[in-house]
Amino acid sequence: MKQLLIIGIGAGDPDYLTVQAINAMNRSDVFFLMDKGVSKDKLIQLRRDILERYVSRTDYRIVEADSPERVREGDYAGQVHDLNRAKQDVFERLIAEELQDGQCGAFLVWGDPSLYDSTLRILDAILRAGRVTFDYQVIPGITSVQALAARHKVPLNAIGQSVQITTGRRLAEGFPDNAQSVVVMLDADDTYRQLHDPNLEIFWGAYVGTADEILRSGRLVDVADDIQRTRREAREANGWIMDTYLLRHRPADD
Amino acid sequence: MKQLLIIGIGAGDPDYLTVQAINAMNRSDVFFLMDKGVSKDKLIQLRRDILERYVSRTDYRIVEADSPERVREGDYAGQVHDLNRAKQDVFERLIAEELQDGQCGAFLVWGDPSLYDSTLRILDAILRAGRVTFDYQVIPGITSVQALAARHKVPLNAIGQSVQITTGRRLAEGFPDNAQSVVVMLDADDTYRQLHDPNLEIFWGAYVGTADEILRSGRLVDVADDIQRTRREAREANGWIMDTYLLRHRPADD
Repeated sequence: MKQLLIIGIGAGDPDYLTVQAINAMNRSDVFFLMDKGVSKDKLIQLRRDILERYVSRTDYRIVEADSPERVREGDYAGQVHDLNRAKQDVFERLIAEELQDGQCGAFLVWGDPSLYDSTLRILDAILRAGRVTFDYQVIPGITSVQALAARHKVPLNAIGQSVQITTGRRLAEGFPDNAQSVVVMLDADDTYRQLHDPNLEIFWGAYVGTADEILRSGRLVDVADDIQRTRREAREANGWIMDTYLLRHRPADD
Repeated sequence: MKQLLIIGIGAGDPDYLTVQAINAMNRSDVFFLMDKGVSKDKLIQLRRDILERYVSRTDYRIVEADSPERVREGDYAGQVHDLNRAKQDVFERLIAEELQDGQCGAFLVWGDPSLYDSTLRILDAILRAGRVTFDYQVIPGITSVQALAARHKVPLNAIGQSVQITTGRRLAEGFPDNAQSVVVMLDADDTYRQLHDPNLEIFWGAYVGTADEILRSGRLVDVADDIQRTRREAREANGWIMDTYLLRHRPADD
């Protein structure tokens, strides 16, 4: 049987690796590195650095593959669905051709494989298709949400209240009426600009946990301009941006 | 200046410790261990095991303190508020009396300090009160939510959809209309029993990541009885229970 390990490697800082992730990497014969777009070289290099730092065996192989890109036509769920189909083909070929029976292959996932990542869904689909078979395990990792909260030293939830983790697209429908705080993970469009409640606070971070980290926080109405400008400038300077933010209603006792 | 480290130590499995957490523990002169109730001895022992396994310096001190318990009268937010006041007094005394200037003290928090944990709120209140002063850093950890998802090998969110992290009390108000999935972290009352949508799936786990781990999953209407019985029996056998669950609408393409 082939073994796969879906390893969460945290949100950027190699110190976010868990002992479980390090042990899993040291069991792996093959690492599949798949990235795309302008951030590709940087992200591949970060993973190579993590392997060099933590893997003591020297007989592992690295297999790089081009990750298909989302075709930005039609509705979003459909785009992601098509993208996952294309990825499924690539993953299935890698597992069939690059991994022997009895060997262990690893996918290194930024953050945690359970949050806004397609790897689990794709592996599920491959198993259901039934052309290749394998066992797999999932290893959680520190998400950018947690890194953001830690760097800002803020709780995600108010006492006894809910926190919603969502996307910019969903936030554009309005601040959820049943959550005290919202974390936005995928937002290319500065959607926080559409909210005007003077009682909202924002805790924003880009490249959190890396040397390029930028943090901003304050009343949304006071800092939105600065965040939008900072975000644009950082994206231009680096060629890409990875950012996250927490919005919350100001606690009553502050 | 005194230094405090608020260290997330993960959801039970010592392998969930991050490199950052291990490094932070090795910088700490004093560890404050505070637990309460029937699970106290077990949880204190788990933390001592973690220290023995990961801390290479031998000159650290452990200070155990009784953690105040919540008085179950009045509304819930008020109870937590009063509890945090009582904890604030204990924490403030520990920082004032048990830590010297230039020393580093650590609080070891189960899971992640940013999610359903009061430590950050309490330290904030102590700093605002102004009687003692210190610097502090927050180190994220793997939450029981992530451990649960990893063990069940499921994503928390559907494609492009929101996930709400909430409590049993909030879930009793109904399944949120603006989230595809819900994670319930604090639920003493089997609140999932109040939901009857035949399209809901549940992924439940108790003591996740420990030797006592129990997992159940399936259509909520099919497995709710079994989960309730399993939960009651485990709580009776162990004297306490720590459990979490994910509820989600069945994905359309499954």
